[in-house]
Amino acid sequence: MSGKLIGVGLGPGDPELMTLKAHRLIASAAVIAYPALENGESFARSIAAGSIPPEARELVIRIPMTVERAPAQAAYDQGAADIAAELDAGRDVVVLCEGDPFFYGSFMYLFARLAKDYDTEVVPGVTSVTACAAVANRPLAARNEVLTIIPGPLESPEMRARIEAAGAVAIMKVGRHLGRIRALLTDMGLAASATYVARASLPSQQVLPLERAPDPAPYFSMILITKSEDPWLS
Amino acid sequence: MSGKLIGVGLGPGDPELMTLKAHRLIASAAVIAYPALENGESFARSIAAGSIPPEARELVIRIPMTVERAPAQAAYDQGAADIAAELDAGRDVVVLCEGDPFFYGSFMYLFARLAKDYDTEVVPGVTSVTACAAVANRPLAARNEVLTIIPGPLESPEMRARIEAAGAVAIMKVGRHLGRIRALLTDMGLAASATYVARASLPSQQVLPLERAPDPAPYFSMILITKSEDPWLS
Repeated sequence: MSGKLIGVGLGPGDPELMTLKAHRLIASAAVIAYPALENGESFARSIAAGSIPPEARELVIRIPMTVERAPAQAAYDQGAADIAAELDAGRDVVVLCEGDPFFYGSFMYLFARLAKDYDTEVVPGVTSVTACAAVANRPLAARNEVLTIIPGPLESPEMRARIEAAGAVAIMKVGRHLGRIRALLTDMGLAASATYVARASLPSQQVLPLERAPDPAPYFSMILITKSEDPWLS
Repeated sequence: MSGKLIGVGLGPGDPELMTLKAHRLIASAAVIAYPALENGESFARSIAAGSIPPEARELVIRIPMTVERAPAQAAYDQGAADIAAELDAGRDVVVLCEGDPFFYGSFMYLFARLAKDYDTEVVPGVTSVTACAAVANRPLAARNEVLTIIPGPLESPEMRARIEAAGAVAIMKVGRHLGRIRALLTDMGLAASATYVARASLPSQQVLPLERAPDPAPYFSMILITKSEDPWLS
């Protein structure tokens, strides 16, 4: 009987924001897998480090940092093959995922390759969106407000249209797009009330008014926008 | 010195989807507060029950179930006053919140009344949106997709416009609006690929194609829509 593929959300970075279930599954895992940079650094592994048993076998999926897609796709092909070998041998594989596996996560690349052939379970995690709102001490959305999550690389005309249509907005993965997005929000009259958050819940976390945010921003950074006045009071 | 107001996200319902931090704060709390129905039932308390110390003082905020706003507002006024009395006496108060406190949560009503006068911390939790995706075994959003969260009570013309503008959609709190929303999605050609999820992560959880969902649905129910084909593979 094949093993089970288990994608485990680890939350935004503070190991204490892992769920009890994530901790239990990792602590009892015989095989874990996770993405890492070519130099071996893995944000996912660093979050889970305190829960990983020393005897667990670790499958590292080294993702080349290039703009072309093919090398990364090849790395996921190889990672999926390594995981499949463990599953075929009857061992469960716990895949470590920053945030939530199904929320803009790289787990999807493994899911797409393996879920049709193997029993799969996903354990949801705290996303960076609610973590950023928490550390900014700023409610995200209430009552009948529409909340729109926008990836930072989205082009400006489409981003503008999406923001205009939303009640509340979180722009993720701001990174090198910060200057462009700040100019857009200034033009829309929304910059002054926007909050910038980087690396929410980590020791290096930063919360600033958007107007004082660094440009370029780190990859793990977000802009929060609330368009209505105190909607949760009305 | 005043105590601290701590809003703690409990996740979608399975107590194991609480974070390690939520468990620690609740297990060491002297005073906890939570909303309950008039008959005393509290979903939030039921999630956290296994972590609450027997000696903790419990402040119950009884929310009248009426369509008018004033009685509920009065209940939050009273709840905030009860919490303020504890904070003034130098005791921290842990407020139990289903899901995430700043994500469509009733914690906002207490936050609006207390955060200006008291030190406040929010601990993010797993939201029902990613929990529903996990139990449906269905990725939510990937890469540069825009994800839009829409509350079920939103009127149909606005809901249609928001869905048209989004890459992926989660419609929350479907409840008695199910029939209307299903008709709208059928008209838009999106019903056949939509998934219905009720009470994700609870023993009574239900995952169904939207076409077979019960009408009316329970309050804690959601519809997930992905408009693009396998975006995480392209």
